[in-house]
Amino acid sequence: MNYWMIAYSLGWILNFEALFLLPALVVALIYKESAGMVILVTAAICASAGTVLILRKPKRMKIFAREGFIITALSWITLSVFGAIPFVLSGYIPHMVDAIFEVASGFTTTGASILTDVEALPHCLLFWRSFTHWVGGMGVLVFVIAILPLAGVSNMYLMKAESPGPSVKKLVPTVRSSAMMLYSLYLFITACEFLILIIARMPAFDALTLTFGTAGTGGFGVLNDSLGSYTILQQVIVTVFMILFGVNFNVYYLIYKRKIKDALKNSEVVTYLSIITVSIVMITINIYHLYGHFGLALKDAAFQVGSIITTTGFSTTDFNLWPSFAKTVLVMLMFIGACAGSTGGGIKVSRVVMLFKTVLKEQDYYLHPNNVRRVKVDGKQVEHTVIRSVNVFIMAYILVFCGSLLLITLDNFDLVTNFTAVAATLNNIGPGLSLVGPAANYSIFSPFAKAVLTFDMIAGRLELFPVLILFSWKTWRNR
Amino acid sequence: MNYWMIAYSLGWILNFEALFLLPALVVALIYKESAGMVILVTAAICASAGTVLILRKPKRMKIFAREGFIITALSWITLSVFGAIPFVLSGYIPHMVDAIFEVASGFTTTGASILTDVEALPHCLLFWRSFTHWVGGMGVLVFVIAILPLAGVSNMYLMKAESPGPSVKKLVPTVRSSAMMLYSLYLFITACEFLILIIARMPAFDALTLTFGTAGTGGFGVLNDSLGSYTILQQVIVTVFMILFGVNFNVYYLIYKRKIKDALKNSEVVTYLSIITVSIVMITINIYHLYGHFGLALKDAAFQVGSIITTTGFSTTDFNLWPSFAKTVLVMLMFIGACAGSTGGGIKVSRVVMLFKTVLKEQDYYLHPNNVRRVKVDGKQVEHTVIRSVNVFIMAYILVFCGSLLLITLDNFDLVTNFTAVAATLNNIGPGLSLVGPAANYSIFSPFAKAVLTFDMIAGRLELFPVLILFSWKTWRNR
Repeated sequence: MNYWMIAYSLGWILNFEALFLLPALVVALIYKESAGMVILVTAAICASAGTVLILRKPKRMKIFAREGFIITALSWITLSVFGAIPFVLSGYIPHMVDAIFEVASGFTTTGASILTDVEALPHCLLFWRSFTHWVGGMGVLVFVIAILPLAGVSNMYLMKAESPGPSVKKLVPTVRSSAMMLYSLYLFITACEFLILIIARMPAFDALTLTFGTAGTGGFGVLNDSLGSYTILQQVIVTVFMILFGVNFNVYYLIYKRKIKDALKNSEVVTYLSIITVSIVMITINIYHLYGHFGLALKDAAFQVGSIITTTGFSTTDFNLWPSFAKTVLVMLMFIGACAGSTGGGIKVSRVVMLFKTVLKEQDYYLHPNNVRRVKVDGKQVEHTVIRSVNVFIMAYILVFCGSLLLITLDNFDLVTNFTAVAATLNNIGPGLSLVGPAANYSIFSPFAKAVLTFDMIAGRLELFPVLILFSWKTWRNR
Repeated sequence: MNYWMIAYSLGWILNFEALFLLPALVVALIYKESAGMVILVTAAICASAGTVLILRKPKRMKIFAREGFIITALSWITLSVFGAIPFVLSGYIPHMVDAIFEVASGFTTTGASILTDVEALPHCLLFWRSFTHWVGGMGVLVFVIAILPLAGVSNMYLMKAESPGPSVKKLVPTVRSSAMMLYSLYLFITACEFLILIIARMPAFDALTLTFGTAGTGGFGVLNDSLGSYTILQQVIVTVFMILFGVNFNVYYLIYKRKIKDALKNSEVVTYLSIITVSIVMITINIYHLYGHFGLALKDAAFQVGSIITTTGFSTTDFNLWPSFAKTVLVMLMFIGACAGSTGGGIKVSRVVMLFKTVLKEQDYYLHPNNVRRVKVDGKQVEHTVIRSVNVFIMAYILVFCGSLLLITLDNFDLVTNFTAVAATLNNIGPGLSLVGPAANYSIFSPFAKAVLTFDMIAGRLELFPVLILFSWKTWRNR
């Protein structure tokens, strides 16, 4: 194990966290908030710890898959722990477990909160909470790679470990330029949303934080009712951008390269948009009687569907009060999640498509045992190793899900609360149903359950294996 | 498609159903019940329809996988439809959808009931209900094969389609002798349970019907409180036999052949017993405060765990009132199910073991990408096709589960009711939680939801693919 390289990488992550804290400091200055002090202190702590760790440059820069996974998992834990300091020091979230939950929820773009009154927080802390969404959405290591040539070719391991989806491809030949390209596209669409919200007369602070929440598919708002009290136009704009940020970024790259035809042929995006359309139609019909107005029912159905499938987690209404059918559709969307290569979480549409196709293939196999068939996506045969890794991912997912569920049931809340709390954290959504519904929060859980759910958020964001490997004894035994 | 062979097979199935009805007729004579008449009429209907269908012997007896699946699926549907006639004619279950639900629940060894007052039924109908469990447990086609040399070598397709588990092996070289051997073992253990219950002073009628329910891992009782009002000794005896009937019958064959060592090495059974032990311990601790008596808590924990993991569905207490942790453990056991090659349902322990091992293997693969590893069970390498079919089974399972869940939520009951109703029918258990808990029944659902749940029972019993293939348009198009 290349321990020096792990320490060195974590040092850089801490330095970058110090950097990430600076915009919040600017916000504190603008609003003349005393909480700016704790942000400054935290940035100083991060920078000092980071500098100590990067003092000794490792002799061997080369890392293997194992180190790649460990660096990724530890980076996200480090970011969450150090990012929690301002909340604890300022006294707004006095307990460290709660503060880590909140910040992990931010970086992993979950958006689950333990705060009962969001509006009580100063602007700078609200900004920091939302900014973690933006940084976490595209991936912290991807960001670091984009800026810093860390370790040459083996960066691919880091990018693979952090980027969502069954098969991570580089957009352009080098990892670094791919990362740069992704962040440029990300920045561009983020800027578009911010500007359009401003044009739609949303206050600048709200527009900025909500844009971060949308872009990262995070879900932290700055008002207690999430997006319930914004205008219909503003809600519709956010709906559209949530859905846009759930699209595979490769498609945007193709559009940028003027390969519109190739972009339109992407079957994952087509499926993603079809699922969204069908879900919106079904839910609109199902909730129509609650509204008595088609347009409003459609608007709320579309917002909630867009929010849940992209794993953002904003809400404009308390969907916990919807009929069972609508709620069940939303719970299923929680698991499906957004496209691979987007900022969204969940199992990912491309995996669901592959699973569906393998079942159809098996049925064909039973009917005609001698015909050999292969699963094809976008006209190309899917490699056996990809299908295997998708299958294994689902199995690991089920195991982590069941394990977490068992542990948090010790708090003895109802089954719907427990089930959707795990679903909403492991899929990086935010709100669940029942006691963790959109009108509620996660403060009800014991510190132990909060720790389990924090684990789920990070495990979900990194698609399980980096975190599973970090906590596996096999990784650490000498051989 | 060999339509003549399908009709011919269904004819034999109907003749056998007429035969299966005779013991119930004897019960009617013993208790001098007028309901015996409807049983006689039904037997006559089955025999006539059956005779017509077997009049024309097919020219080609050979069948392929496709016909095997279709015969299996249609046989189970036919049995359920014709078996429902006595309940409708006698007026005890006036609606056909309800009666088919009840009888499909019997044959598939689910044990879910739409009856609000079981004790109102005459003995002969109670007997018929329970006897369907015994017939369905080991498999109807297996029974037919054991008696009748239907179509020589291609019987293997029927046995594969009907027998539970990822890889069906013949115990002895021919399918027919294997079927004979299985039924002999089944009969022997059934007789043991009946005798021991009689010795424990259970009334003969109760002992016989409960033995059928235990042997088939069915769950229909003859009293409204299931097994709640029997003595502790009788409950313990049933606990032990439920667990015994959840064991892979290959192990009993090995014991019969005096290969005790080989029998003890079966990792599926070892895992199965370990899961049971751990679950009993955890639940006993969790529910102890409700009893204040260790022995009683242990007895009820053991009974419920044994009942749920073997997918029997008897109950001695209303576990819907237990704490969340205990309930969640039971819901997980619902999905795990019993051993392959037993009379129990669910996903099966052997599949769960293989899934667990593939996840561990994948983790190893990430750590050491160049080491090729294979999943081993019982020291033998598991073939790639078996692992693939296990993966595909789980995916098909999830799809059927989600589809059914969506359809029954239209009745607008709470999510726990819906989720556990599908879980309890697809896994052939019987009781779920909330409104379908052990103290409740399935009469609350609409006819449409009952039809969906009936589909789930048959799909679950036949491990999905026979039923999926029957309802797939691809199967029926000409090519």
